[in-house]
Amino acid sequence: MAMDDLGGTALLARLTAEHRWEDVPEDVRHEGVRSFVNWLGCAIGGAPHAGVAAALRAAEMFGTGPAVASLPGLGRRADPATAALVNGISSHVLDFDDTHETALIHPSAPVLSAALALAEARGADGAALLHAFLLGVEVACRVGRAVMPSHYDAGWHATGTAGAIGAAAAAARLLGLDAQRCGWAIGMGATQPVGLRVHFGSMVKSLHPGRAAQNGLLAASLAAEGFDAAPDAIEGRRGFGEVLARGYAPERISEGLGESWEITGNTYKPFACGLVVHPVIDLCLGLRATEGFALAEVASVQLRVHPLVLDLTGKRQPTTGLEGKFSVFHAAAVALVDGAGGEREFDDARVRAPEVIAVRDRVEAVADPGCGRMEADVVLTMRDGRRISVTTTTPLGSLANPMSDEALSVKFLGLAEPVLSAAKCARLLERSWAMAEQKNLGWIATDA
Amino acid sequence: MAMDDLGGTALLARLTAEHRWEDVPEDVRHEGVRSFVNWLGCAIGGAPHAGVAAALRAAEMFGTGPAVASLPGLGRRADPATAALVNGISSHVLDFDDTHETALIHPSAPVLSAALALAEARGADGAALLHAFLLGVEVACRVGRAVMPSHYDAGWHATGTAGAIGAAAAAARLLGLDAQRCGWAIGMGATQPVGLRVHFGSMVKSLHPGRAAQNGLLAASLAAEGFDAAPDAIEGRRGFGEVLARGYAPERISEGLGESWEITGNTYKPFACGLVVHPVIDLCLGLRATEGFALAEVASVQLRVHPLVLDLTGKRQPTTGLEGKFSVFHAAAVALVDGAGGEREFDDARVRAPEVIAVRDRVEAVADPGCGRMEADVVLTMRDGRRISVTTTTPLGSLANPMSDEALSVKFLGLAEPVLSAAKCARLLERSWAMAEQKNLGWIATDA
Repeated sequence: MAMDDLGGTALLARLTAEHRWEDVPEDVRHEGVRSFVNWLGCAIGGAPHAGVAAALRAAEMFGTGPAVASLPGLGRRADPATAALVNGISSHVLDFDDTHETALIHPSAPVLSAALALAEARGADGAALLHAFLLGVEVACRVGRAVMPSHYDAGWHATGTAGAIGAAAAAARLLGLDAQRCGWAIGMGATQPVGLRVHFGSMVKSLHPGRAAQNGLLAASLAAEGFDAAPDAIEGRRGFGEVLARGYAPERISEGLGESWEITGNTYKPFACGLVVHPVIDLCLGLRATEGFALAEVASVQLRVHPLVLDLTGKRQPTTGLEGKFSVFHAAAVALVDGAGGEREFDDARVRAPEVIAVRDRVEAVADPGCGRMEADVVLTMRDGRRISVTTTTPLGSLANPMSDEALSVKFLGLAEPVLSAAKCARLLERSWAMAEQKNLGWIATDA
Repeated sequence: MAMDDLGGTALLARLTAEHRWEDVPEDVRHEGVRSFVNWLGCAIGGAPHAGVAAALRAAEMFGTGPAVASLPGLGRRADPATAALVNGISSHVLDFDDTHETALIHPSAPVLSAALALAEARGADGAALLHAFLLGVEVACRVGRAVMPSHYDAGWHATGTAGAIGAAAAAARLLGLDAQRCGWAIGMGATQPVGLRVHFGSMVKSLHPGRAAQNGLLAASLAAEGFDAAPDAIEGRRGFGEVLARGYAPERISEGLGESWEITGNTYKPFACGLVVHPVIDLCLGLRATEGFALAEVASVQLRVHPLVLDLTGKRQPTTGLEGKFSVFHAAAVALVDGAGGEREFDDARVRAPEVIAVRDRVEAVADPGCGRMEADVVLTMRDGRRISVTTTTPLGSLANPMSDEALSVKFLGLAEPVLSAAKCARLLERSWAMAEQKNLGWIATDA
């Protein structure tokens, strides 16, 4: 059968089953490593969250299998299904994980959480983990792009829907399934979408990638045991594309498959809040670092932003750290005062700090429908009437202006060092950057 | 807060948390018992299916917790999550389980599979199991009715979508959660819908209730541990009703809640095939039992049926037992020849039997859009020109003409006796009919 005759499910299944590690370009491998470093830091940094502990207790309520998979940041292991759930939650709960901008997916939380747990259980090496992860991201993001934007607009959280499909593909690859069974696994990922955007603002938002990772593991395990599925679950009648979206674009599955790589569209957040706030923070940090002025001189801080910024982060008077993440006013102020935009800048103390509030009260924002999503202006007006104006369309962390490897290392340490010893953090970071050469993965559970 | 001010999620949560067993009418309890008898027979009879064995191997691929929950028909136990998955599959795989006609749901496969596993793990008694099951069915079927028919038409398999919500409610009840946490559990069931009708015809159709049962268990376990969720996951913006259906009818959640009982709308199949074929089989059995004629005299068998009958079961020349279930021609013929419509009448041997084929070749069918879904005519034309015509709108097994308790017992034994000893079957049946008085549930794992 010619490739052209295959439907989307079969095309993705064949890629998953048959792609060769030797054919993964070096820059693609490196982007996979960058995603791993970012994911691991987020998982460690998120591990102390109350939702993670609750999920671990729930997953173990009825006992579990042998503890062979790591739970980064928790200093212990669990069985692979439990690890997939817990790590999917911990790596997403801070909203600091990666973003594929055209698929509108945070791909690593579902895909890596499944792949790492299974790779550890199977004694896989670093290259096998990376390859399965890259293929899972390819599947998740191509499916995501094929159903966007109507899928997200309808109310689905694609990280847990397309994410489950990608997790299934990654797990199927690690189990060494043939193309037919990879197709079953992908189809069983598609029939277990998680979940609904009504839950945004509750702990369930991060359950979505966690359960998606588990769903992917189950799908691949079932396929490995001969549990059969429809061969056209993505594109078929009453399949994923038709049922979960108004517009399904099959060419987004097939175009350049195996040649271009979705991982190269992945981005990493430099700042510990929603992406929509990043242009403003980036500009404020630049102002603080380079312009000669004292904050006391600033009479007003005027923002021009995309309308979504005020929709999502328009909280004028935040009172908690979490509320601070939904306040572009706080984000601008704390960046100007502290010169940073990490987790610490969004804790309760900084949101309530008088010196931050003093600046925050002088921030004004205007939503401009003509403003791009990655675009913002900041205008400082001094008490003497002087004005300083800056603008960006490519803030740090956007695809056009990505974080450097060094910046990702700094982000990793900022997340991990409050949780683990500095020595462990340094070892994890060094080995993670050399993931493709790791003969085994035991060091992750040992140190993380 | 007045009941009227509560949304659907909170109303269902309050009922789940606060309803009293003393307030369950006797006929409602008895219908719950009838559903249990039917479910247990289906689970035992379905246990030898290859998909059940594959799912059990997959679920245990990475080890499991203590084996405290029964796997009817398999002669062993598993941890509750594994049991929920496996029993949800085994009780649905024969397509012989119950049907709630207005919710378009097979409620027992997802809800009882979750409830029994948890009840066994918790050492609950028969009344607690029944009550949780009745409440879970109430939740599943009210949600199902609120989104029908657009939910099913869109391509969702409601048994695994609304079923997961019902399973979550039943599990939350057995864990003794308060109304707020029951609401979280219901909301987490809603965010894990399974699955897509594209999989009908593959093993994944029965994965849907199995995974739904597991999803319900996880949802309740998470809620019990304090994992919070949106309080309006059913009716809210970007919630289950809006995202998974075009029309959400909130009054179907609230009307008569706690007074009427959805279980009284549950029906049980007398025949081992799709419901659409039941009117024809019922008529053919009646003809064979009461009319004086020899099959050799019959020149033709003419059926008038609802159009869906030929859409779904129009296979003219089936060659396997499974294909026989999708052939109204075989169903009519084997009913006339054997005077029965059980699993045996849909095995490979009966589909290939010359005496059945001889009659099948004389069966003709006409789809009539004016024919009701539960309506059919059968006209026998004899070689001498004599005609015998019968018609029904209330075939055996429909809500208007339900199977008797005795008929359910016969069905149970027909399913269970090929799998378990006659003595075990008899004990299980006797104790199941007295479920409301059982002080514990250990006898299920012992005998089933």
